Amino acid sequence: MRLATIRTADGTRVVRVDADRAVETGHTDLVDLLREDGWRASAASAAGPAHDVSGLDYAPLVLGPEKVICVGLNYRTHILEMGRELPEHPTLFAKYARSLVGAYDDVVLPPESAAMDWEAELGVVVGAPLRRATPEAARAAIAGYTVVNDVTARDWQYRTLQWLQGKTFEATTPVGPWLVTAEGTDEPAYPLSCEVDGERVQSADTGDLVFGPADLLAYLSTIVTLMPGDLIATGTPGGVGHARKPARYLADGATLTTRIDGIGECVNRCVLDKSAGANR
Amino acid sequence: MRLATIRTADGTRVVRVDADRAVETGHTDLVDLLREDGWRASAASAAGPAHDVSGLDYAPLVLGPEKVICVGLNYRTHILEMGRELPEHPTLFAKYARSLVGAYDDVVLPPESAAMDWEAELGVVVGAPLRRATPEAARAAIAGYTVVNDVTARDWQYRTLQWLQGKTFEATTPVGPWLVTAEGTDEPAYPLSCEVDGERVQSADTGDLVFGPADLLAYLSTIVTLMPGDLIATGTPGGVGHARKPARYLADGATLTTRIDGIGECVNRCVLDKSAGANR
Repeated sequence: MRLATIRTADGTRVVRVDADRAVETGHTDLVDLLREDGWRASAASAAGPAHDVSGLDYAPLVLGPEKVICVGLNYRTHILEMGRELPEHPTLFAKYARSLVGAYDDVVLPPESAAMDWEAELGVVVGAPLRRATPEAARAAIAGYTVVNDVTARDWQYRTLQWLQGKTFEATTPVGPWLVTAEGTDEPAYPLSCEVDGERVQSADTGDLVFGPADLLAYLSTIVTLMPGDLIATGTPGGVGHARKPARYLADGATLTTRIDGIGECVNRCVLDKSAGANR
Repeated sequence: MRLATIRTADGTRVVRVDADRAVETGHTDLVDLLREDGWRASAASAAGPAHDVSGLDYAPLVLGPEKVICVGLNYRTHILEMGRELPEHPTLFAKYARSLVGAYDDVVLPPESAAMDWEAELGVVVGAPLRRATPEAARAAIAGYTVVNDVTARDWQYRTLQWLQGKTFEATTPVGPWLVTAEGTDEPAYPLSCEVDGERVQSADTGDLVFGPADLLAYLSTIVTLMPGDLIATGTPGGVGHARKPARYLADGATLTTRIDGIGECVNRCVLDKSAGANR
């Protein structure tokens, strides 16, 4: 089952995206649906107003998540090829929800950064409250999976030791187009890729994560209660622009394609924010 | 004017805390009041149900802030005495709202950490939307000031290079008891202190910040829109337990007193979470 948050003339609506139509569930934010007990069954049987799937305007998958949590250094092959040891603990940092954009929205390049870079990632959405959970309980609490690009201002990321300021620029992080619901057992092992203007720049398999979705949720739930709608971006593989020689970044007008086979695809145009500038 | 969020038998209520009584404003979360245009005037004239100030049960000052943003390495005297240069940019990291507790609530010590430490801080609450603001515009958008203790699990903070996981344990961060509203001009230069079981462990002046409240808000607003109710914890001075020889941490039963003269005081008992443990 695929669930999305779309924009309509009457505001945002949560829809179940079937093969040929998208059916409203009666919610305005996927977070609200996921907070309801039995959301899988009610979403599966929803029979609200329907939309043609070809014309959907996808909003960020979750509009008001309590938390967006990001993971760094989590692709086994890339860590080993860099000559590093596999980490004992996941590297965690945050992003604020205002950085999220929809699957086909513009990624807004802030004029304050000269180094906006791509990071294709598997996104995990939480489907039930979770605190000090075992990996087994965490797996059962995964609502499903989505596509994220943790677009990063490298110059700001490395201004200080803490990455937050490079990670949460307004309207920079595609997430969507939909949630592919998990059924409590499988963890996805799918090809993940990133393309810039049609050129493949990242390629990996989501099964190569050092800390997989269930392990991450269990770990996080030791620290703080995870809530329905929380979004976890599970980390990116090698191939980012900052590590290239010479370094390469997202240019005004570039097309950024983030894909996970079996889950979905975001296609975003990168657009320099020309409205900004007065106070730089 | 002092504004607080309190717990009542009917749920949380925002109150204006006068000398002898607290008057309800008609909101359940200070964030909701601050989102209204003209909130200063409406709060000043609020005439809802009144409570005796002696019996107030203070909730975290803001319940559902869009963002909690923390600053590191921000006390000039402490940086210089450590032999470091003053930073060019503020160090920023996040905390999730679930880590907040009220001014007299228990600070919950997670059994998963053996190194819970104190960090007395000046808190700044945003009172108007702010994007790419000048310091002058940022100053005018400050709702006011409060008291924060950014209690930190040092062992988890330093598990990886990113501090988030040591900064956001559930129910660890006192904030309150109230907001002292700012009137658009002054930045507070008040004595700040932290005591553990009555022993003074931190002592500084909030005027010693490298990046003051207005400069921080202006900087942050370059990255992302600040919204009413956003809480910024502006950093802690020297004297934390982790830097002592031998290191000293918060023990089960300890009393943590965080005070800013002219703003307010939080007094929190530290209590080991004995309900936890099954999945450690």
